[in-house]
Amino acid sequence: VSALRGFASDNYSGVHPEIVEAILAANEGHVSAYGDDPYTAAARRRFREHFGDRAEAFPVFNGTGANVDAIDAITRPHHAVICAATSHLTLDEAGAPERIAGVKLLPIEAPDGKLTLGLIEEGIDWGRIGDQHASQPRLISIANSTELGTVYTPDEVGALAEFAHAHEMLIHVDGARICNAAAALEVDLAALTTEAGVDVLSFGGTKNGLLLGEAVVFLADGLADQFELVRKQTGQLASKMRFISAQLDALLSGDLWRRNAAHANAMAARLADAITAVEGVSLAHPVEANGVFARLPAPAIEQLEWSADGARAFYVWDEPTGVVRLMCSWDTTGGDVDAFASRLSDTMTR
Amino acid sequence: VSALRGFASDNYSGVHPEIVEAILAANEGHVSAYGDDPYTAAARRRFREHFGDRAEAFPVFNGTGANVDAIDAITRPHHAVICAATSHLTLDEAGAPERIAGVKLLPIEAPDGKLTLGLIEEGIDWGRIGDQHASQPRLISIANSTELGTVYTPDEVGALAEFAHAHEMLIHVDGARICNAAAALEVDLAALTTEAGVDVLSFGGTKNGLLLGEAVVFLADGLADQFELVRKQTGQLASKMRFISAQLDALLSGDLWRRNAAHANAMAARLADAITAVEGVSLAHPVEANGVFARLPAPAIEQLEWSADGARAFYVWDEPTGVVRLMCSWDTTGGDVDAFASRLSDTMTR
Amino acid sequence: VSALRGFASDNYSGVHPEIVEAILAANEGHVSAYGDDPYTAAARRRFREHFGDRAEAFPVFNGTGANVDAIDAITRPHHAVICAATSHLTLDEAGAPERIAGVKLLPIEAPDGKLTLGLIEEGIDWGRIGDQHASQPRLISIANSTELGTVYTPDEVGALAEFAHAHEMLIHVDGARICNAAAALEVDLAALTTEAGVDVLSFGGTKNGLLLGEAVVFLADGLADQFELVRKQTGQLASKMRFISAQLDALLSGDLWRRNAAHANAMAARLADAITAVEGVSLAHPVEANGVFARLPAPAIEQLEWSADGARAFYVWDEPTGVVRLMCSWDTTGGDVDAFASRLSDTMTR
Amino acid sequence: VSALRGFASDNYSGVHPEIVEAILAANEGHVSAYGDDPYTAAARRRFREHFGDRAEAFPVFNGTGANVDAIDAITRPHHAVICAATSHLTLDEAGAPERIAGVKLLPIEAPDGKLTLGLIEEGIDWGRIGDQHASQPRLISIANSTELGTVYTPDEVGALAEFAHAHEMLIHVDGARICNAAAALEVDLAALTTEAGVDVLSFGGTKNGLLLGEAVVFLADGLADQFELVRKQTGQLASKMRFISAQLDALLSGDLWRRNAAHANAMAARLADAITAVEGVSLAHPVEANGVFARLPAPAIEQLEWSADGARAFYVWDEPTGVVRLMCSWDTTGGDVDAFASRLSDTMTR
Repeated sequence: VSALRGFASDNYSGVHPEIVEAILAANEGHVSAYGDDPYTAAARRRFREHFGDRAEAFPVFNGTGANVDAIDAITRPHHAVICAATSHLTLDEAGAPERIAGVKLLPIEAPDGKLTLGLIEEGIDWGRIGDQHASQPRLISIANSTELGTVYTPDEVGALAEFAHAHEMLIHVDGARICNAAAALEVDLAALTTEAGVDVLSFGGTKNGLLLGEAVVFLADGLADQFELVRKQTGQLASKMRFISAQLDALLSGDLWRRNAAHANAMAARLADAITAVEGVSLAHPVEANGVFARLPAPAIEQLEWSADGARAFYVWDEPTGVVRLMCSWDTTGGDVDAFASRLSDTMTR
Repeated sequence: VSALRGFASDNYSGVHPEIVEAILAANEGHVSAYGDDPYTAAARRRFREHFGDRAEAFPVFNGTGANVDAIDAITRPHHAVICAATSHLTLDEAGAPERIAGVKLLPIEAPDGKLTLGLIEEGIDWGRIGDQHASQPRLISIANSTELGTVYTPDEVGALAEFAHAHEMLIHVDGARICNAAAALEVDLAALTTEAGVDVLSFGGTKNGLLLGEAVVFLADGLADQFELVRKQTGQLASKMRFISAQLDALLSGDLWRRNAAHANAMAARLADAITAVEGVSLAHPVEANGVFARLPAPAIEQLEWSADGARAFYVWDEPTGVVRLMCSWDTTGGDVDAFASRLSDTMTR
Repeated sequence: VSALRGFASDNYSGVHPEIVEAILAANEGHVSAYGDDPYTAAARRRFREHFGDRAEAFPVFNGTGANVDAIDAITRPHHAVICAATSHLTLDEAGAPERIAGVKLLPIEAPDGKLTLGLIEEGIDWGRIGDQHASQPRLISIANSTELGTVYTPDEVGALAEFAHAHEMLIHVDGARICNAAAALEVDLAALTTEAGVDVLSFGGTKNGLLLGEAVVFLADGLADQFELVRKQTGQLASKMRFISAQLDALLSGDLWRRNAAHANAMAARLADAITAVEGVSLAHPVEANGVFARLPAPAIEQLEWSADGARAFYVWDEPTGVVRLMCSWDTTGGDVDAFASRLSDTMTR
Repeated sequence: VSALRGFASDNYSGVHPEIVEAILAANEGHVSAYGDDPYTAAARRRFREHFGDRAEAFPVFNGTGANVDAIDAITRPHHAVICAATSHLTLDEAGAPERIAGVKLLPIEAPDGKLTLGLIEEGIDWGRIGDQHASQPRLISIANSTELGTVYTPDEVGALAEFAHAHEMLIHVDGARICNAAAALEVDLAALTTEAGVDVLSFGGTKNGLLLGEAVVFLADGLADQFELVRKQTGQLASKMRFISAQLDALLSGDLWRRNAAHANAMAARLADAITAVEGVSLAHPVEANGVFARLPAPAIEQLEWSADGARAFYVWDEPTGVVRLMCSWDTTGGDVDAFASRLSDTMTR
């Protein structure tokens, strides 16, 4: 176990102390399994506080499960899902959406990882609508914050949602880092989702201080009807659900969700400032949440990718252009950032 | 939260203190995600200590995931899986094996929930082997201990494994309660699995004191090759896997796995004794592990199914015959047992 | 090629001359592919003549395709389909419904292959309705005529349909031999389907004189909306659809459908009479359509199963009880029947 | 039915007279169903004559079925299939490969519809090999001739096959028009497939004069083992298979396959010559088989897309650039070609 925290991923970090306490507090006596328990009821209410009275939240294990189940619930296998070519959905789910939901993904090249109306209008062959030989677009799926560390504003999400609804489509947000997006914009969670017209959200907890736990949150009416069966059949139903629900509840009660996310975002900003001050280092994408994508000289990558104790410090995102990804977490410290920037600077001047 | 622990399910209980400690101990600094971490490496070694040098263990979230992934890894969709008609696999997975692995289940009526060679020979239409119109049996799946609280001995498992292998089939054990089976028989885990010829095991932790966590354990060579992709694609890959692995490691280091299971078994035996002493109460199945299936008079069911504080005390397993299921857990106390038996007795005499 | 027609299956026969003519007549010039052609339009109109104004018919290749697509169109993977344990659906589709539609089949033992309200009420665990751990019954699927040569009357179908609808289920008829059923009862096709409340029908042509061709026919509103995509995605969309449509149209124009089916039925009745006149031969099921299930002495089976020229004369249906299946076809002659009965009689007296 | 044959598709044409004869000849007496018949045996032998002694051919209904079944037989759902971005596989199967085989498609932009080693090396992120988060490339699928009317030579196919095998992948050819490719190159079918190292072929009959019928042909050992079950489970098993087999046999006996294809190719060449002689008309892709992709002025498209009798004359392939697709068939005549060119010329000069 490395003494120094690196920047490999926000899921390299552990569990926030307040979340640990929530788990311990939930560890009392016997409780009904499979979600019929007071902790889950409380978590569901808590989601409604944040996402509105119609929000229906269902705890699941992980992000793949949340995304696949959200998609499965609102599509049929002959549907297509529009997403960014850089999306986790198409690059990092090992084909789970295709295999489990049966859908086709339609990835669109998107600068900085953000879909726009223009990109979607250009990127989809709209002449195939109604053509029995082509999967029919039914869903736009965006990640917020994106896989490249950028953020959709409420207006941007709203425009996509409006477009989706005008074309008989729905809109899904992969919110593995939705808290980072909301914290970055200093808006409420609802502003980025419910109020912007989002239909279903994968709410991420694991990357924001949980041991594990995400939730599929239906924001529009009539979509959640048979979701319990979808969740069960796809292996995402926890028996001792209280321990996931208690974490989600703790994250969303008070301001822990925002504190953790805002802290990680601030560390990323600090990191971006510090490393771009080094000659030869530049940003590959705007730093808007908790991720920094930077171009590093090859020797710097070679010397810094792995720390002295064998831990990975970051991932190389694009080998040819020397772009690396540096993720900050709820537990990243200013010291971690400064030490890294200092080592980077040293590397340059050697 | 109920003060008195009921007998509704062994997943109504919480997390054992030693497991809690293991979780807390793992919550140090940054660690690689997705299983590339020392906790997972340790857990994998630990599984080899118990299941032999060739055992390949992969932590997953829950029992549905373990069962479906184990089956998916070693079958093709045109295969059939032989199982007991009372199995969790066919009754309680909401069709997950069919939908995800694509296979057909061939449930066979089995007294006390246990498949035998005779039942399989009788229950399967062997004339369909090689017939392109029929799913081809490829796997025998048994639960040990069974869903009806009975236990397969090593010899019984071995006979099924031998039969399976002689017929170009494999054998899978749904071991949601494998520890209870081994504890009941006072044998090692390997005696019931590896040494008996089992090919793949769903190892259960959640019902034996974990917060959550199971493992798919391949015991025969060559079956695990692409399993990491299967696990990922089916949504069972934990990012902060260390927290599942640390629990599994703690369960299997020392004798916690056996202590917890043996205790639950002992409580079930005590419960069986106590309630069958009551007039009008009889056992529906032999009590061999941590579950008691008993016939209760209707008034007793009515009065005892729910405790005063609204918690479920047990499930009615078969309404017409008045059979109820009473599960004991690692935290069931002698006092819990005696209090229930006493209330039952009171009910009868009123 | 055998000179004598046997009784192995009604799909051992060839193409009826009037169907051949329809194919040849359709073989003129260029025609739009994939169903956008006048032959398909005519066939669709023809189906409406028989099944009512709301009927939406879609030609497909074969019976597996028709059944699977019909089920897929009106279920979700967490649904269950109630069927007879003797149904083609569960015994002879190699697990296609489970794999493609993702559903679970709930086969019920049914004497003479016919489901009844009583059997369904008894055979399904209705306590699982609304239980997230169990596939939810959504469809009753019956075959008419059945796989055992029996026939549901309009009243019997109507009772099942009413029950289905009262329980938020739909009803599907596997009509691979629906023409034989209607001919046997001397009723219209609609009487057995649309008017009885059937929601969707697999209409069989292949066994009734076609080269190949079936149709999925939606009889209730709102079920066919996205069916073209279902058909395409499951590989059942013919490019030169005119050749399937022209056959279906020819079968349903005039009375060819009834002539062929009634003839096959009559031959079965004649066969049943002839062979039961032989000592030691008895019927295993009532002979109501074009199939005869008879118990034959073992020596007779041995001598008659294969004809002198190596062609299979019939299939042994149940080895232990000596039940064989004898299917009559549109081209079975009285001579074929009498010759077989005579050979059977000879066998007995030798 | 239009008197004048258009150029909309090679599946707008009917059945070649010699194929009609083969169907009629096969329509004699009773024959075993599901492929256990002399016609299918003959067809399988015939495929071996063309594709080598190890070729295992399985008749199926249509191209979607052939492609999906071929892929399903040799992949697992966590695999990816490399194909051209213009391939029928990704554009025109309504997501069937994803839904049925569960795989992910990796479409690569390919000029003139042809994949090359360079394009594949560039287009795939080889850094993901062995990464559990990414579908693993297992198959290269090319169409020959391509969807844009171009042809891979034996050397080009061989280079792709060699690359595939060197990277633990297999190679599939979508041969809906493999006869056109072989005829165009004046080579044997084996030269383009077996001898070039192809593992599995979708052999197309429908577009080359059949009523309907394709075949999945395994060319490498060990791939076909369980294919009969795959074909059945995916709904591609014909009961009266003799009628498909007899067509395939007739196509491949003598030189009908080459005659039909060469004729269509010659008509395309004649058409390309004739229309490029018209001012303002140019080719969008090389004309190497039976398809002509040409840029037409907008007024020409408007006047010619539909013929006077309401039949479609061609499809607009790319609206913005005015590219249309003109397909020639086995029954296209020189008169058809000249008449079209003449009308096009008239349009220009008006």
